[in-house]
Amino acid sequence: MLYGSIEVGGTKMICAIGDDTGRILESCVVATGAPEETVPPMIDFFKSCTDKGMEIAALGIACFGPVDLNKNSATYGYITTTPKTPWINYNIVGAFEEALNVPVGFDTDVNGSLLGEVTWGTSKGLTDVVYLTVGTGIGGGIMSGGKLVHGMMHPETGHILIRPLENDNYPGRCPFHKNCFEGMASGPAIQERWGRPAYELKDRAEVWELESDYIAQAVMSYILILSPQRIILGGGVMKEQVLFGLIRSKVEEKLNGYICTPEMKDLDSYIVPASLEGNQGIMGGLKLAIDAL
Amino acid sequence: MLYGSIEVGGTKMICAIGDDTGRILESCVVATGAPEETVPPMIDFFKSCTDKGMEIAALGIACFGPVDLNKNSATYGYITTTPKTPWINYNIVGAFEEALNVPVGFDTDVNGSLLGEVTWGTSKGLTDVVYLTVGTGIGGGIMSGGKLVHGMMHPETGHILIRPLENDNYPGRCPFHKNCFEGMASGPAIQERWGRPAYELKDRAEVWELESDYIAQAVMSYILILSPQRIILGGGVMKEQVLFGLIRSKVEEKLNGYICTPEMKDLDSYIVPASLEGNQGIMGGLKLAIDAL
Repeated sequence: MLYGSIEVGGTKMICAIGDDTGRILESCVVATGAPEETVPPMIDFFKSCTDKGMEIAALGIACFGPVDLNKNSATYGYITTTPKTPWINYNIVGAFEEALNVPVGFDTDVNGSLLGEVTWGTSKGLTDVVYLTVGTGIGGGIMSGGKLVHGMMHPETGHILIRPLENDNYPGRCPFHKNCFEGMASGPAIQERWGRPAYELKDRAEVWELESDYIAQAVMSYILILSPQRIILGGGVMKEQVLFGLIRSKVEEKLNGYICTPEMKDLDSYIVPASLEGNQGIMGGLKLAIDAL
Repeated sequence: MLYGSIEVGGTKMICAIGDDTGRILESCVVATGAPEETVPPMIDFFKSCTDKGMEIAALGIACFGPVDLNKNSATYGYITTTPKTPWINYNIVGAFEEALNVPVGFDTDVNGSLLGEVTWGTSKGLTDVVYLTVGTGIGGGIMSGGKLVHGMMHPETGHILIRPLENDNYPGRCPFHKNCFEGMASGPAIQERWGRPAYELKDRAEVWELESDYIAQAVMSYILILSPQRIILGGGVMKEQVLFGLIRSKVEEKLNGYICTPEMKDLDSYIVPASLEGNQGIMGGLKLAIDAL
């Protein structure tokens, strides 16, 4: 049986067809414009696959937030208040349900990536996991007790308060909270603070010293509030590999021995990079499709 | 059918017998000393109830942490590293299982209180809830997707970092993290900062202005990370009723419109006091017993 998957991103849409082992058989990328120009070629991709004999039984959509995940809501399946204005109040689930006539699973992009990692990645089988992405924005997917966390909406873990360090005069750039975690530590915040994009700052130790402190502060909050079995760090900023070691040692320093578990004694296995080589989101979408069926 | 419940506290133990409607039929209180002097009279209570024809089918224990909740662990059911030294590595589940020969449910005190509130309190039926207690210490019970959050251990929500306010020179008193949330906002922190216990500071507006800011900062993190449907605030410090209004308005101010849900438009129903008049913990223990059976 085949399944469809869509990763809905701010710059590009990835569409794929795969099977229940997570194998991707066919995929395409569509640049993100307004819905009326972006969605039709995505639908065409799935229809052309059907014509080639690759019919999907269900579709999974992992989408940038905020989205409405409440199945009892009149706007379930909608993108809600996004800064990407053409997509405000867009019924993305409805659009694909109508065009393809299959069950559609729906969740946030970060929950999708988390689902990919716990289904087919090195975190397979874990039940309590945080997947944090640090890039253009900062967001987190969360699984607790084997279920993706939704609650009243879905987590927005990137906007928690961190303590700005004394030697950091950057005011932060979050339009809502100024110097929250995302406002201080996203890719654009790094670029604005230091005058260059993160990938041109590799040799500046002070950049990663500061960045790792803010990420470690957030990770400390996730550990204390969620008690996860593992924390996966992905996104463009985390491509700077030096961050992992710095974050691990700062988390240890900040927790200061308060949490005594086997996991805390092996932080190399506890705070880890994503394992699916950038495919965690689209593979998570496949799992959303399987679960929708 | 009858069930036993124990609320294990640092100053007292409450033992009770009740039914599956949450009604308490019989109870007793034992002052907390060392295990060898405290546990026998508790066992005697349940045995004397049996003699009176009130035999219990199962027992639930809601216990101060940290505790080992991992059923695959060799020390499941133990109190682990506690500052109450006679109880370090005490097998509390084993002690009662052996003495009473019934199934024993076990969780943290705060998860117990949460369970009481969602089973028999005004939060009945909710699936994603935070129960925070602000008293001698600060701790939180968490339910996500209808399940109590355990993960690698259990949440320790009281030790997250908050931002000390500029006009507050108090250094904090957490032995692990100095000025974490508990270090800055517990009952003993209030007393040490202002020179008097909280209940003697009712007319000092600046006390509650500061306290509510720290609690609101923590509540903001819980909202962003867990997306709960409700936050229940209990414990001795929360008896100061003026805190509720202050916390609600500061949470609104800090989130600054970022989370748009019906819940956020009605903070009086979102951030609420405990509803079971101090019985939430012992009633939660009954539910732990029912679930253990």
